[in-house]
Amino acid sequence: MERRPLRLRKGLPMLDKLKQQVYDANMALERAGLVLLTWGNVSGRDPDSGLVAIKPSGVEYEQMTPAQMVVVDMEGKVVEGELKPSSDTPTHLELYRSFPGIGGVAHSHSTVATAWAQAGRSLPCYGTTHADQFRGPVPVTEEMSPEAVGGDYELETGKAIVRAFEDLDPAEIPAVLVAGHGPFTWGKTAAAATENSIVLEHVALIGLLTEGLSPEAQSIAAFLRDKHFFRKHGDGAYYGQSDS
Amino acid sequence: MERRPLRLRKGLPMLDKLKQQVYDANMALERAGLVLLTWGNVSGRDPDSGLVAIKPSGVEYEQMTPAQMVVVDMEGKVVEGELKPSSDTPTHLELYRSFPGIGGVAHSHSTVATAWAQAGRSLPCYGTTHADQFRGPVPVTEEMSPEAVGGDYELETGKAIVRAFEDLDPAEIPAVLVAGHGPFTWGKTAAAATENSIVLEHVALIGLLTEGLSPEAQSIAAFLRDKHFFRKHGDGAYYGQSDS
Amino acid sequence: MERRPLRLRKGLPMLDKLKQQVYDANMALERAGLVLLTWGNVSGRDPDSGLVAIKPSGVEYEQMTPAQMVVVDMEGKVVEGELKPSSDTPTHLELYRSFPGIGGVAHSHSTVATAWAQAGRSLPCYGTTHADQFRGPVPVTEEMSPEAVGGDYELETGKAIVRAFEDLDPAEIPAVLVAGHGPFTWGKTAAAATENSIVLEHVALIGLLTEGLSPEAQSIAAFLRDKHFFRKHGDGAYYGQSDS
Amino acid sequence: MERRPLRLRKGLPMLDKLKQQVYDANMALERAGLVLLTWGNVSGRDPDSGLVAIKPSGVEYEQMTPAQMVVVDMEGKVVEGELKPSSDTPTHLELYRSFPGIGGVAHSHSTVATAWAQAGRSLPCYGTTHADQFRGPVPVTEEMSPEAVGGDYELETGKAIVRAFEDLDPAEIPAVLVAGHGPFTWGKTAAAATENSIVLEHVALIGLLTEGLSPEAQSIAAFLRDKHFFRKHGDGAYYGQSDS
Repeated sequence: MERRPLRLRKGLPMLDKLKQQVYDANMALERAGLVLLTWGNVSGRDPDSGLVAIKPSGVEYEQMTPAQMVVVDMEGKVVEGELKPSSDTPTHLELYRSFPGIGGVAHSHSTVATAWAQAGRSLPCYGTTHADQFRGPVPVTEEMSPEAVGGDYELETGKAIVRAFEDLDPAEIPAVLVAGHGPFTWGKTAAAATENSIVLEHVALIGLLTEGLSPEAQSIAAFLRDKHFFRKHGDGAYYGQSDS
Repeated sequence: MERRPLRLRKGLPMLDKLKQQVYDANMALERAGLVLLTWGNVSGRDPDSGLVAIKPSGVEYEQMTPAQMVVVDMEGKVVEGELKPSSDTPTHLELYRSFPGIGGVAHSHSTVATAWAQAGRSLPCYGTTHADQFRGPVPVTEEMSPEAVGGDYELETGKAIVRAFEDLDPAEIPAVLVAGHGPFTWGKTAAAATENSIVLEHVALIGLLTEGLSPEAQSIAAFLRDKHFFRKHGDGAYYGQSDS
Repeated sequence: MERRPLRLRKGLPMLDKLKQQVYDANMALERAGLVLLTWGNVSGRDPDSGLVAIKPSGVEYEQMTPAQMVVVDMEGKVVEGELKPSSDTPTHLELYRSFPGIGGVAHSHSTVATAWAQAGRSLPCYGTTHADQFRGPVPVTEEMSPEAVGGDYELETGKAIVRAFEDLDPAEIPAVLVAGHGPFTWGKTAAAATENSIVLEHVALIGLLTEGLSPEAQSIAAFLRDKHFFRKHGDGAYYGQSDS
Repeated sequence: MERRPLRLRKGLPMLDKLKQQVYDANMALERAGLVLLTWGNVSGRDPDSGLVAIKPSGVEYEQMTPAQMVVVDMEGKVVEGELKPSSDTPTHLELYRSFPGIGGVAHSHSTVATAWAQAGRSLPCYGTTHADQFRGPVPVTEEMSPEAVGGDYELETGKAIVRAFEDLDPAEIPAVLVAGHGPFTWGKTAAAATENSIVLEHVALIGLLTEGLSPEAQSIAAFLRDKHFFRKHGDGAYYGQSDS
């Protein structure tokens, strides 16, 4: 008789709420039309335990349940769940380790953001829609070396993302284009990460059309960009209802 | 115990009908696919009282109710409603003040109209579909100055729109592209404003494709443009059923 | 008391079946995404009486009923129905008069076909999808003169279409692009006319993308075009199930 | 009294399961938006008997049933079913004969893949989304000669496809673009063939947009391409859940 490894550490919270949130954020990503087949994944991190819940690898959205979300620790070890976590888990973990304060990561091969990634181009801030969510261009990573691809590929993908943010604030630009691959986004929660993927795809499309209409299109002025970003973010934000 | 400010002036009509119409026009804008997340807003003006009902700021469409529409006076003071009005309210009010006879204003970041706005280009009248609704090019505003953006930004946005209509009739061209930002449209009612947003997005897309097929594409002749515009508008209109 | 004009000639068939077919074809056109607002219309002709049923002008699709279809004779006189017929009725009638054997006409402002019309370009036969339905390029009309537009405009539109087919067989190319305006299609029935509008929009899009991928794209060879056209049309057709 | 030909050989399995799978794969192709009207078809092959079930020719998807799938032998003779098989059946059979190990074939006129076919261009491997499914460019066939088109056209189409794979492995690149016509895909099952059509359409679109954003776009490096392909295929695959 085979013994199943112990998946549930004694005293560990079941993290049911996080798993539900991560499930919801994965389903929202799919509902938004950003996912082809099973090729997308969202994770969320529990701020207390530091554990991360993530979509299982290659499971159909229609059949997926909240209970199937896989919980891993920061070394990628499965601490709860019967299924294999997303193959992109090491990329997610590297972002949690390197970008303090984020609580969710999303990845998809959404059509237009992926086209920018394949073109090897960062996405300019062509308008206020972009600036509402991203305070400047969304950067593209450098191409990965044969050694990085041949090594711990998914971890190296995360490192390439982190390098692209050496001079950028991931809280102000919560998105990246991995060259030749596609977008990753993040946020304070799994839901926020998904929302950033949705906005990224939208502004990637508007940006592409903008260039089609005007090959000499320019980024908007920094003062207009910042006006919009800080209407929605930070202490001076006045968009939406106050939370209290 | 905190005292809530008196929101309902004595003797003021509840404006329930207007709030329902404004709610419906907001939902129609979202259903037409013109709204990203919560980033759109429609208002309507009561011709008797001069009061304006508008979408609350940042509220999810799925959870929104007619009762949540916020009623403001022409100075932007909330006279009915529990929520904050759209942050774009001062822009709407400036249009009501400056464009006599309009009873509805709509704003979105719809994909293709926003691309024209980001490209800083007015939308030429490339065909009869455009001319059915807009009697000539839909103008783009000038870029706003650092002072305007740093001042009363949303009011200044309205003023920039009004300046773009110095030599145009807002009743004949009920739409504008705010440079680097996106479209505003208006009409006799909130529903008409939404309809103009829908048509604008459609002709913005057809116009973009027209240029792709023929970089030398020309606007249609003025006699054909006016034939179509006046088939549907004014005393000689013969499209549709007579209202009586 | 006002007397309503006699709309129903004695002994005239109610044409209920035709009205249902025309209603269905109009709804199919809208369901296919080819119609903006109320801006589309399909008609069908009863081969026995020569009467034509057509969509009423400017009526919302959601509220439309089969009984509202308007029946006109070949001079455009309403012989059955309470509403005004489509303002494009004279165009439809000119096509019935000039193209023998057709029993349905459809008109829309579908996005991509309209872009070709606005670009003033005929649609080349770039592939077998096009050739399955249209045996050669879909022609664009000449631009209409000020006199034609200022005169009986909708009738003149029909005449411009007919002139574009002087050297073409409308049974083999059941579609046209009216310059600066949009597509008209036809067929043996109202349903066939709608189907041709659907195929036209599809091949208009594929054709546009083909040129984007290869500015030197060529029409397919005549022998391949005819192979596909005659797989589906004429005595040698072998696509589909035999009708018997 | 007319005698119906014997359609069911004695002792032959009813192949109900295969017909259901082929029906499902056809419906999935349509649901994915890849099919215009009735212009798509998927087949599946029973590995034991070598018989092939395929969609009947020209039947509406809404009315189609699993029982209507037509079973043919490798010579194209109908061995079960009341309807005519797809007119493209000889193309499917040629692929089964020539590409060992495949169990499903799909064909559609999906918009963007067809545009690449009409442009006469193979689809470069511009990113990892492409490489996840196709290990290299998706080839385009040569144009067919007048003799091939005038002869056994659908069989010759299959032969043209096979010739395009003289130096390629159809198990690693399970897709082709037939010049001037459209895509065919295949896989171990009918469902896999449909999935490859879905991915092909997606990467065809991303590829087209990539070129729009960067006319000098390059294929990704072979080491990155192979990393992604073999993450999902072959003995070293680690994407998804293990089947055991």
